[in-house]
Amino acid sequence: MNPRAYLDWNATAPLRPQARAFMVEVLDLVGNPSSVHAEGRRARALIEKARAQVAALVGAQASDVTFTSGGTEANMMALSPGWAAAGDAPIERLLVSAIEHPSVLQGGRFAAGQVELVPVTPEGVIDLSALQRQLQAGGRAMVSIMAANNETGVIQPVQAAAELVHATGGLLHVDAVQAPGRIPCNINDLKADLLTISGHKLGGPKGAGALIRRAGLHLSDPLIKGGGQERGLRAGTEDVAAIAGFGAAAEAVAGERSALELVRLQHQLEAGLRAITPDVVIFGAGAERLPNTTLFTHPRLKAETAVIAFDLEGVAVSSGSACSSGKVQPSHVLAAMGVEEDLARGAIRISTGPATLPTDIEHCLKAWRKLSESLLKGRNSIAA
Amino acid sequence: MNPRAYLDWNATAPLRPQARAFMVEVLDLVGNPSSVHAEGRRARALIEKARAQVAALVGAQASDVTFTSGGTEANMMALSPGWAAAGDAPIERLLVSAIEHPSVLQGGRFAAGQVELVPVTPEGVIDLSALQRQLQAGGRAMVSIMAANNETGVIQPVQAAAELVHATGGLLHVDAVQAPGRIPCNINDLKADLLTISGHKLGGPKGAGALIRRAGLHLSDPLIKGGGQERGLRAGTEDVAAIAGFGAAAEAVAGERSALELVRLQHQLEAGLRAITPDVVIFGAGAERLPNTTLFTHPRLKAETAVIAFDLEGVAVSSGSACSSGKVQPSHVLAAMGVEEDLARGAIRISTGPATLPTDIEHCLKAWRKLSESLLKGRNSIAA
Repeated sequence: MNPRAYLDWNATAPLRPQARAFMVEVLDLVGNPSSVHAEGRRARALIEKARAQVAALVGAQASDVTFTSGGTEANMMALSPGWAAAGDAPIERLLVSAIEHPSVLQGGRFAAGQVELVPVTPEGVIDLSALQRQLQAGGRAMVSIMAANNETGVIQPVQAAAELVHATGGLLHVDAVQAPGRIPCNINDLKADLLTISGHKLGGPKGAGALIRRAGLHLSDPLIKGGGQERGLRAGTEDVAAIAGFGAAAEAVAGERSALELVRLQHQLEAGLRAITPDVVIFGAGAERLPNTTLFTHPRLKAETAVIAFDLEGVAVSSGSACSSGKVQPSHVLAAMGVEEDLARGAIRISTGPATLPTDIEHCLKAWRKLSESLLKGRNSIAA
Repeated sequence: MNPRAYLDWNATAPLRPQARAFMVEVLDLVGNPSSVHAEGRRARALIEKARAQVAALVGAQASDVTFTSGGTEANMMALSPGWAAAGDAPIERLLVSAIEHPSVLQGGRFAAGQVELVPVTPEGVIDLSALQRQLQAGGRAMVSIMAANNETGVIQPVQAAAELVHATGGLLHVDAVQAPGRIPCNINDLKADLLTISGHKLGGPKGAGALIRRAGLHLSDPLIKGGGQERGLRAGTEDVAAIAGFGAAAEAVAGERSALELVRLQHQLEAGLRAITPDVVIFGAGAERLPNTTLFTHPRLKAETAVIAFDLEGVAVSSGSACSSGKVQPSHVLAAMGVEEDLARGAIRISTGPATLPTDIEHCLKAWRKLSESLLKGRNSIAA
């Protein structure tokens, strides 16, 4: 049994051994990838190898992959009115689902008045009829929909949305940060025009992400300018070690058999939670979800204290998303699903990955039993 | 003697051993710095330690340091019309010296029509009288001047410029990427309002940089939005390993005795070049320069082939800047100094660092002797 059970993979995944070993090697190489000498050419080759590995993971051409410093930057770059294929009319507005990551919800480089929210159902699935109405009610739109929600794990109907978006001449961006290794995320199958993935969510390092674009799409105004790197789309000396590690992790993910083991762990976890506390609420339980993610609560739970209580028992879990430094706010995702604020305040997210063991889930359930005993006795110690 | 002489430190410095060792340790830690559990808190602590180390290097408060993915992103973020202290009038335009790095020259987030170039003297020093005239001829300005030029090494009169800028109520941004470990770069002594430094230029890793601001200065519209990280100024999961390595390198630089050894190497190099080829041209030789940088040429030299010829002799040097992937263009810096294009096309940059040995310089001079022999015989093999 691991000394601690790390069950917060949606916040950040442990670095995969393949990626770690390669990065340590790469750290010893000097050389700016833009330099002409041998040291520079070696750095350049590492980046191009990683580009091919990342492209293969999502079924794209290497030339359509732009490396960024992470998923947030890739989303910010994606949500730019300047994306166009030859002959396209200008993009006039941005539609984003109400459950997107904050880096999408804030609308990127669109003006606040150009951004509209698309509602979701009580199960946390984007409302496609609403999307269709919104698409028909205005000018040419970019639409941003995540492949799967980071808090609930609910998988979104991206292909169906793509058809609606493309029927009105719009562009679809898919934040697929939570997809690799869990569900397929082929850019062509998803019919996405732009796709975001993140290194550290798939077992690569923090500090590397990618925006993948459909062939033929161009950005007139890069987010970070001032150098010819990344075909002029993203200036700045490339983080060679992080990109190399990202590539190695992407290759490892692409080579994994399936997410079947994650499904087994999820069943073990959710059956255990229900056995210990029959009145446990699992959010989005009626929808198709990622096999690694369970967001749950109990009517008397306060998430902030529960996360600390789990932590003291040696179990790292989270209260929804970890993106807003230290802030404890009710989840915007649960609010969009119509969950009452009091219940939403108790939401605990457990997310697993390829290194998670059944004993980690046992460890977690043991901690939950202990917490729930205080809870059910009405001592309310975890709601203090 | 090193098997190869790496003399391209201004493009990227080798990772310092302290930074490397620490990064390898940090790679094994899992945890998103925004997470509440033990793993998250440990990651957070590493970032805050690095923030204090970087702040100490430039004489700032830790709370005034924003980590970015590198110098280019920090420059892009700095050049934003939205920077203001309480009560400030809006910034209407941007003045940048004609020898700035491309990430400054492109004007950041100012509209093209708002950006003006400030000329330099033939020695490559910003023309302060021109700056003064330009400041007086228009609305409130942000001014961006580098601490020292990356190609010539020429040190800029930042303090004198700061006085002119502040007398007209403007803001001064200093791109000090090439300063640490070579010349002092205390934000208060420089009288800068915003200061950029880069991890990999001072022996930290690629993928980390910082924008340091004078206390009281705020940015209304972050470049990368969608998360509370970096006090809301820069969203996205922090690259913990890179930031930790940056901090360790910054501390190592701050603890170094002086750049005296670099001065000795520079003297060895330039005396050697002059002895071998008396008609060598050293750019900016009449100005105060960084002790680690020498940009030189010979009337019959072509830089692109000379860099390759040096490389084949085991010496890594560059043709000016390495920022624009593979492009071979005459240097905008030399053009701004009034150097004829033909001469500028031959410019070779040699830049050293704390690990450079006198034998590296000997290695370089040996290669130069060989090249110059073909050159002086008029065989012109390096201009082919």
